[in-house]
Amino acid sequence: MIEDLIKQNRSSRRFHQEHAVDIATLKSLVNLGRLSASGANLQPLKYILSCDPEQNAKIFSCLAWAAYLKDWKGPQEGEQPAAYIVVLGDTDISKDAGCDHGIACQSILLGAREKGLGGCMLGSINREALREHLNIAKQYNILLVVAIGKPKEEVVIEEIDTEGSIRYWRDEHGVHHVPKRELEDIIIGEYTA
Amino acid sequence: MIEDLIKQNRSSRRFHQEHAVDIATLKSLVNLGRLSASGANLQPLKYILSCDPEQNAKIFSCLAWAAYLKDWKGPQEGEQPAAYIVVLGDTDISKDAGCDHGIACQSILLGAREKGLGGCMLGSINREALREHLNIAKQYNILLVVAIGKPKEEVVIEEIDTEGSIRYWRDEHGVHHVPKRELEDIIIGEYTA
Repeated sequence: MIEDLIKQNRSSRRFHQEHAVDIATLKSLVNLGRLSASGANLQPLKYILSCDPEQNAKIFSCLAWAAYLKDWKGPQEGEQPAAYIVVLGDTDISKDAGCDHGIACQSILLGAREKGLGGCMLGSINREALREHLNIAKQYNILLVVAIGKPKEEVVIEEIDTEGSIRYWRDEHGVHHVPKRELEDIIIGEYTA
Repeated sequence: MIEDLIKQNRSSRRFHQEHAVDIATLKSLVNLGRLSASGANLQPLKYILSCDPEQNAKIFSCLAWAAYLKDWKGPQEGEQPAAYIVVLGDTDISKDAGCDHGIACQSILLGAREKGLGGCMLGSINREALREHLNIAKQYNILLVVAIGKPKEEVVIEEIDTEGSIRYWRDEHGVHHVPKRELEDIIIGEYTA
C-alpha cells in the first residue's frame, strides 16, 4: 500500500553511516525520478551522485540541518548519510524547474524507503561552496540535496499542539516528533454533487 | 513495488467521465499529501476538492491541456475528469511553497493510481478566472490543479528521438507517447569510493 510507504517515509537525519549505499542503488533511485512527471515534459533536472566518503564530507560541509533543533548542528561522524543525490535544474532547458524537483525527490525517497533506506531533502545549502566543491557549472541551479542512508532514528507524526506550532522537536529518548496539520485544517473547500 | 506504480503513473488527460470519484476518495488522496514532506515542515498547502459536475465544468473552463498537441483543445464532454484537487499555497504561512506541491501531488497521484484512478497535474491555469469561480481569497496562491478520474487512454514512455525533442505526441490509435531523457543524460557526475 502506498499509504504505508508514505507514512514510513519520514525525513531521516541520522544514519548508520557504515551501511554503504552503492552507486547502482543511487542510479535506480534517480531512475524513479526520471520516470516521474515533469512540467511540459521539459525534464530540466540533472543529478550528481556521491557514495564516496571524501566527497560526502565536502557535501556535508555545505548543508544546514534541522533548523528548529537549535542545539543540534547535524549528524555526527558515524551518523552521517552514506550517500547524496544533488538535484540540479538545467537552465539551458528551462529557467525554472517549477516543482519538478519535489515530484522527482518524492519518488526517489519512496524508492529509498522501500529498499530499507531513507533520507531527507535538504534545501538549506551553502550553494556557492557546493558549486565549488563539485565543480558545478553556472548553467545548473542547485535545487536540493537529498541525503540517503540507513536511518538510525525514530520519527513520529503527531497532531499540532494547542499553540499551533509546526516546529519538529526531539524528546529525551532521541525520538523526532513532527507535528502535522489536520486534514480538516488543510481542506478549505469541498464541492460534492 | 514502487517502481511499477511510478511507471504506471502516467499523466492522463482523457477519462471515463461517468466513473464517479467520491469526496471520501479525494480526502484520502489529500491525506497522502498531508503526510508527505514539507520544507521546514511549514505545510503551507491548502486544498479545494470538487467531484460536483457543475463546479467541475467551471474548473475545466480555466484549464489549458497538453500544449504540444496543437489540434487538441482538451478532453471532450464524456472524457473529462470526474474530480479535481485544487492545490493552493497559503501565503499567511509561507510566501513561497518551494516544491511542496510537487512532493504532495506526486503522493496524491501515486495514491490515485493504486486505486485504479489517474490524473494529471495542470499548471497552465487561468488563475484569475479560477479564483473568481471558486471564490479563492487573495491569501492563497493557486499552485496546481490536479485532475482525477478513471483513465481512458494509453500512455507510453519512449526514448527521445534523434532530434532530441521532448514533445509528447499522439499516434493514429490515440496512444500518447512521452519521450523521456535517458538516465545517462541526466546524471552528470558520479563519485564512488
